Amino acid sequence: MSELLQPLEPLIQALRRLPGVGVKTAQRMAFHMLQRDQEGARQLARALVTAVDSVRHCEKCNTFTHETVCSICRDEGRDAARLCVVETPADLAAMERTGAYRGYYFVLMGRLSPMDGVGPKDIGLPELLVRTQEPALQEVILATSFTAEGEATAHAITELLQGRSIEVTRLARGVPVGSELEYVDLGTIAHALVDRR
Amino acid sequence: MSELLQPLEPLIQALRRLPGVGVKTAQRMAFHMLQRDQEGARQLARALVTAVDSVRHCEKCNTFTHETVCSICRDEGRDAARLCVVETPADLAAMERTGAYRGYYFVLMGRLSPMDGVGPKDIGLPELLVRTQEPALQEVILATSFTAEGEATAHAITELLQGRSIEVTRLARGVPVGSELEYVDLGTIAHALVDRR
Repeated sequence: MSELLQPLEPLIQALRRLPGVGVKTAQRMAFHMLQRDQEGARQLARALVTAVDSVRHCEKCNTFTHETVCSICRDEGRDAARLCVVETPADLAAMERTGAYRGYYFVLMGRLSPMDGVGPKDIGLPELLVRTQEPALQEVILATSFTAEGEATAHAITELLQGRSIEVTRLARGVPVGSELEYVDLGTIAHALVDRR
Repeated sequence: MSELLQPLEPLIQALRRLPGVGVKTAQRMAFHMLQRDQEGARQLARALVTAVDSVRHCEKCNTFTHETVCSICRDEGRDAARLCVVETPADLAAMERTGAYRGYYFVLMGRLSPMDGVGPKDIGLPELLVRTQEPALQEVILATSFTAEGEATAHAITELLQGRSIEVTRLARGVPVGSELEYVDLGTIAHALVDRR
């Protein structure tokens, strides 16, 4: 990094912590925000602090929410016999948009990835174990990604729930192998939901 | 945007003001910063505010600096007869790295782009006119990009300085047409500097 860009250096370094942003992209972002959109820069700073300070995890399903318990978990009209385990809030949103599911959710906020140091506790498996002790629950539907890590996560949860009187199912393989749920078309997700095994 | 992602919505919208960031990328960034790097989020927020509040423009060359006048403009060992006009601080840094130039700079912080509402005042042409009135100045070297907009900017500056006793030169066309200076290899830039016409 040239000393000539030194006044922007702290901002460039901070921008590089965003996923997928390298040094050239960070330089361009820093330049753009300072030169063309200072109000946008302030807005982003406020949004970051507000989000970190005010967004919390739902006590029941672990998704992001401003409340203690999120709106889906508060909805008593849902099917309490089913719990769908997804990796991210975006995956949850994709499931909801299919309109094919009326049960509750548990959001792992990630997937097992020993290489990146993401273990069972990091994806809330102890909390999931507690959640699955609710008497009404009959079925846990594993809707983690059909990637190696997603499959390993599904496998770990299956083992975790073994010996309990709960049916553990997996989305059918209608979902293309190697893809992430968030990016799959809704029809495919709906089909995979019906075919769960 | 799903209401399920609503707690992240202000952050996602703010991230979309970064250049080249669409809604999916913004979602992934927001999710990553909240879930995996809250300290990074706070650091980015601080860096944005600090940059907007403390980075200013050099009174002589218009580049970003923390001082009134930047380190290059304060360097009295440079060739006061030459002024190199570049579009961005990154372009200035590329020129410096060639080691082939020892004069001063003027940084436009953009280029003429009527379609985007960027006119002569937005790229500091009035300030450039003032800067070129210094008695020692003999030559203005136009090092704007060899794109349509960069060429139009060079043309506009040439017209602006017409009738003055200043030689106006342009980097030689050794720089590949259609590319931006920042990304050109240093040898090519050095060659184009020697061949200026």
